[in-house]
Formats: sequence, structure tokens, C-alpha cells
Amino acid sequence: MVLTREQPHFFGAGPAQLPTVVLQQAAADLIDYQGLGLGIGEISHRSKEAGKVIDDCKKHVKELLGVPETFEVFFMQGGGTTGFSSIASNLTAAKVGRDQKPGTAAYLVTGAWSEKAVQEAERLGISTEVIFNTKKASGDFVSIPATSEWVDKVTADKHSYVYLCENETVHGVEWPEVPLELAAKGVPVVADLSSNIFSREIDVNRYDLIMAGAQKNIGLAGLTIYIIRKTLLEDISKVPESQLRDMGVPIAPIASHYPTVVKNNSAYNTIPIFTLHIIDLVLQHLLKRGGLQSQQSVNEEKAKMLYEALDQHSDFYNLPVDKKVRSKMNVIFTLKKDGLNDKFVEEAAKLRLTGLKGHRSVGGFRASLYNAVDISSVRLLADFVVRFAQENAQ
Amino acid sequence: MVLTREQPHFFGAGPAQLPTVVLQQAAADLIDYQGLGLGIGEISHRSKEAGKVIDDCKKHVKELLGVPETFEVFFMQGGGTTGFSSIASNLTAAKVGRDQKPGTAAYLVTGAWSEKAVQEAERLGISTEVIFNTKKASGDFVSIPATSEWVDKVTADKHSYVYLCENETVHGVEWPEVPLELAAKGVPVVADLSSNIFSREIDVNRYDLIMAGAQKNIGLAGLTIYIIRKTLLEDISKVPESQLRDMGVPIAPIASHYPTVVKNNSAYNTIPIFTLHIIDLVLQHLLKRGGLQSQQSVNEEKAKMLYEALDQHSDFYNLPVDKKVRSKMNVIFTLKKDGLNDKFVEEAAKLRLTGLKGHRSVGGFRASLYNAVDISSVRLLADFVVRFAQENAQ
Repeated sequence: MVLTREQPHFFGAGPAQLPTVVLQQAAADLIDYQGLGLGIGEISHRSKEAGKVIDDCKKHVKELLGVPETFEVFFMQGGGTTGFSSIASNLTAAKVGRDQKPGTAAYLVTGAWSEKAVQEAERLGISTEVIFNTKKASGDFVSIPATSEWVDKVTADKHSYVYLCENETVHGVEWPEVPLELAAKGVPVVADLSSNIFSREIDVNRYDLIMAGAQKNIGLAGLTIYIIRKTLLEDISKVPESQLRDMGVPIAPIASHYPTVVKNNSAYNTIPIFTLHIIDLVLQHLLKRGGLQSQQSVNEEKAKMLYEALDQHSDFYNLPVDKKVRSKMNVIFTLKKDGLNDKFVEEAAKLRLTGLKGHRSVGGFRASLYNAVDISSVRLLADFVVRFAQENAQ
Repeated sequence: MVLTREQPHFFGAGPAQLPTVVLQQAAADLIDYQGLGLGIGEISHRSKEAGKVIDDCKKHVKELLGVPETFEVFFMQGGGTTGFSSIASNLTAAKVGRDQKPGTAAYLVTGAWSEKAVQEAERLGISTEVIFNTKKASGDFVSIPATSEWVDKVTADKHSYVYLCENETVHGVEWPEVPLELAAKGVPVVADLSSNIFSREIDVNRYDLIMAGAQKNIGLAGLTIYIIRKTLLEDISKVPESQLRDMGVPIAPIASHYPTVVKNNSAYNTIPIFTLHIIDLVLQHLLKRGGLQSQQSVNEEKAKMLYEALDQHSDFYNLPVDKKVRSKMNVIFTLKKDGLNDKFVEEAAKLRLTGLKGHRSVGGFRASLYNAVDISSVRLLADFVVRFAQENAQ
């Protein structure tokens, strides 16, 4: 049994393509891990081997992102959707710890995912304020307003946290970075980096909580990386849960109560060690190839190549997103002429270019350029995009 | 790269050994699934291939357990611990749907896991009643009282649900079956079958909700199987969540709100498809080998063989659990003589018999005999147990 494959050219939005060498190593480790005679998925999450996977994975997250000592890294089951819930309950508890009142959660809504996040906080019974919703302001999720237009609405007294989704996969809108003026507000900045973590360098100090589901740049679905400022953990731990219940603050399920998870080194309950091991293999692979600086420059080149090819034929392709906030991870476009969508998909598939269909709520096309998508795949797609426009313009 | 291994003799309590042939197929499918050119973990959870994994897995659960049409099968991320939380919130909502009041949750506490379950319900702010706790009654978790002694305390008017853990892995106590008198009470019976599902035939009609984490008999950690009576889903859906919030009933995070998960065929959020695929491969493997009737008879033989070996040397081994409720999955024993524990582990390891250490809260030894532990491994262990007693009795 030789486990191999041709290099995929898969542009799906997630779960997404992973490096073939990582999967090959994972496949071997699924059956016999380091000569144990057992796979890494079959042993106790409290064994020394599993503990080392957890510790290594934390170490590599810290190394790649330059996480300061003032932060903790931990892992929880679930993805973004479970993150929406755990953020709302834990960060509201933290506000009670700081100010003896739950406050209001501020949301910056720039696409489908930040919208879902605020809906979940409301559903759990938390007071929320939408600082802006670009669709409501301009008819669609295609832009992000200048920071000066809204940042004064966020205040440390009123708000428990301010939430943003750094890259919106459905609408292709990405924050170029977390605004410094926002980070300076004294309100905990919570950011969903599920679809762009490890795609570029970031300044972790601009955040108080980073949440990132694994299934795009990092690994299989099933786990989420959290990076939290330690003072927030202390804030949560200050308040007895009986007091939170009395105040009507929703209690996070014990498996997603951040201080409990951190105290137990991400193994309060059984962490899926095989899934975590794949994450660690991806991180090791990234480090070997030069870390985030190198990955960022490749990703910028990939995005530039594809956007240029599409822009060059702007009579044929429609790119809805404001150039300043175009996502480097998810390139969204539609065809201006009707009736060509199926032909586009079929001809792309002949070159093994797949996973290009837009999200069901948006339509058109979406090319996701996550880390594991090779630049040669993007070149193939860019060339195809140009040729398809030339051949079908008339 | 040939992925193979010697047959393990691993008696760990979970995550546990899986059939080697299942892991070999999974390893191949991790890299290229059915000629797609992509692994089963890399594609959208809404693709037709992923949809088929979900549907097949549901079908095989139903087939193996004989699940009636009046039940739904669904999958959620997490394990038992996340189940403790989601059961408390969802089943309390169901009671409000039936009776316009949240009621009290009844717990039958027979070991560490049912104890944790009631603690979590209390923590979330739900009114609970411990119908019995065998440790509080008799000093340790080693027995289950006769049904007639407690069943009248459970009443449909007062109780939202009655909860039990069918097999306690830490203490080695297993309910022989769910008592018919309990099932007849008209109170929803909720059972944690995480460690004995698919180990024997059951009568699904005696339950209203079965919850079973995957990492023992079914697959890797990360997913939980739920089997729920459809009327319970209707009960939950009857109540607006605003009403639940007003009543102080905890709201389940959206990813663990049972009606939402069922309505979306277990893919409301991204389900870990690779992990689910392994579950399906395990179920197919079970079906091929004759289903639960055949597995049950092998498991009974395995348990009988080991208990007999230990009982035969009852001057040397101490078996704390009442014979009537001894677990067929987790055999708990200690050595009567001091100072021999390390020697036991070392000599066992020479025969590649591993994973035998008892839970850190109990000490001694624990041999877990889950489905994937071959009868030949148990024979080896039983022979060793006899020989070790003979050699060390004096």
C-alpha cells in the first residue's frame, strides 16, 4: 500500500486541502506512532505521548505567531460556531470579574460569520450592540468603514468585548489588520481568525482573544486554537458561578469554560489527539519552510496573481469587494455574462481545478488560496481565468 | 510505505485500540478518498461525499442497534463531558415544552461519570435530585441497588428526565440493562453508553436519549452519537428560547441544540468528516463480522475468561465490584499483597500486555475489553494473571 496522490488544485473554502506530506505522516502515525505499536489516536489523552503532542503544538503556535508570555494557548473541540457561544459566555463572565456587571458585547459585522457570531450571543441572552453592519449600511458585505468613523462608539465602561471576524470566507472581506486605535481602547479585542491564521504575520498584542477553527489553514475539522491574554482568564476566575447565574449570565458548558480548559492543559475532557497531531504536523511543516514571513510572501503573490488576472478582464468578471479589504484567502467573483457558470466549472475541472463554486448564499465563484494551495495551482487558475475570458467575451 | 503493525494487546480505558484493518483503510482515505484525489478530511461537510458518510453512518447505527422509526440518530462534536451539558439544557427545555415548567433532573449515580454528569447539570443552574449515589450509601461505587428500592422516587410530574451511565469505566460497574420498570415511568430515560455501545444488543425502546462518545468501541475521540426519541425533539422545539431565558433555563449553544443539529443532518456546523468516516468503517466492520449478537457473545466470553482467572485466585486478587453489576468492558482489580504493582506491570509488558493501570483516582489495575480487543489478547492476559498469582502468592 503506497499512499500518494497527484498534487491537488483544490480551491474549496474549508475543510480544505492539506499538504500531502503531512497527510502521509499522519496516515503512518494513525497505525503506529513512533514504534509504540499503537496509533496516536488510540492512546490516553493523559499519556506522556499525548501530553507531548499538546505541548509541542502549543510551542509551535507560540513560535510561529510570536505569542508573548502574557498569553495562553489552548485547544478546544468544535470550530467557529462553538467559539461564538463560548466567547459570549466566557468574555461576559470576564467583564463581571472586572466591573461587577456583564456589560454589552460590541460586534463589528463585515460578513456572514461575524453576523452569526452576534446572533449567537443574542440567542444566549447576552446584551449586544452592533457597532456597524456593512450590509445594512451599504447593501452588501463588500467593505469595511474607516476606523475613525466608528471606533469612538467602543468604550471600556460599556463594552465587555469587541468582536470581529478577520477574514470573512463567504463574502471575501478581510481586515488588513486589527486597527491600532481599536486595540488601544481598553476593551478586550476578540477576533475570529479561523480562515486566515498562519497565513500572515500578526501582532498578537493587538488582540485579547484569538479563536481559530482548524479546518482551513491548520488541519482537519474538530479542533479550535485559542490564544488568550492571561488577565482575561483571571477576570473569569474571579467570579463565583453562582453570582453569574444570579445575574442571568449564561454559564459556559464545563468543556468550554476557558480557565478549566487551561488549568488542565487542554485535556479536561478527551481531546482528539490524532486531530491535534495533524495540526502539529502542519505547524512543523510551516516552520520548516521558513515560518510566517515566508508563507505570507507566497500568499501575497498568490492573491496578487489571481486578482490581477480577474481585474485585467473586468469587463468579463465582477469583483464585488472593495479593493482595500479584498481577502487574500477567498477570492470572490462572478461572471458578468449569464449562462456561462456551468461551462466555467466544467472547463476548470478538465484542468483539475476544483472547489471553485461560491457559497450557496452568494453564488458565483470563490477561489480559496489557503496555505496548502500551491502557487503553481494558482498560476494554473489565473491562466485559465484569462483564457476563459478571452474565449467567451464575445 | 507499508502501514501495518503487530496485533496490539492494549487494555487502555479510552481512547482505545481500534481494528487495524479499519485504521489501514482510514489511512488510505485520509490521502485519497475513492479516487477523488483528495482525502475525506479535506472536502466540504456539505459535499455529496461527506453527506454520504453521514447518511451511511446513521444507517449503520440504526441497523446494528435496531433503532425504531420513532428515533433520530445524529452526531455532535465532543464526548461525554459535552454531552453532560447538552443533555441538561436540551432535556430541561423539553420538559418546559411538555409541562410549561422546567422540572427537576433525576440522576442515578453509580460511579465517577454519572457523578460528573449531575455536577454539570447543577453547575448550569438546573434543579437536580440524586435518586441514589451508591458511594454515599455504601462507601464506594461497587453496586447498584435493586430497582424496587428506588424506582418509585422517579415521577413524570416532577422529573424532566432520569439519567444513568450504563457502564462506569473508572469503577467497573455496569447496568445489566435499563430496568423495564424505569422505562415504564413516563420520564425520559437518558443513558450514557459511551463505553459499552455496540458491545451488546439493547432494546432502544427502553431509552429516550442515548449518548455515546466515540473513543472506546466506535472510533477516535471527537464525536458523539446521539439517538433520540422524536417526540423529545418536538418538545424542545415547542418553546420559544426567549421563554426559556425568562424561566432561567440554560440555553444550549447552537451547535449542541438538538433540533438544530437534526434539522441540518448533523452538519449545522462543520462535522469532522474524517473522524465520522472512521466510525462508519468500525460499524461496517462490526456488521461484516455478524453484528451485535456475535460481538456480544465474544465480549461475554472475554469477560468470563478474565473474571474467572481472577476469581480463581481471589486470595491474591481483590475484585471490589458486586458480581451482579461487574462491567464486561472494564475489569477492575487490585493486588492484595503490597509492593507488587510495578512488577505486575513490567512482567505484563514483556508479553506486550499494556494499558492495564487503574484510573488515577482508584489505583490498582483495569483491563478494558472493548470490541477491538481480540479474544486472543484476553486469553494471554488471563493466563498471565493466573501465572503471576501462582508465582507471587508466597
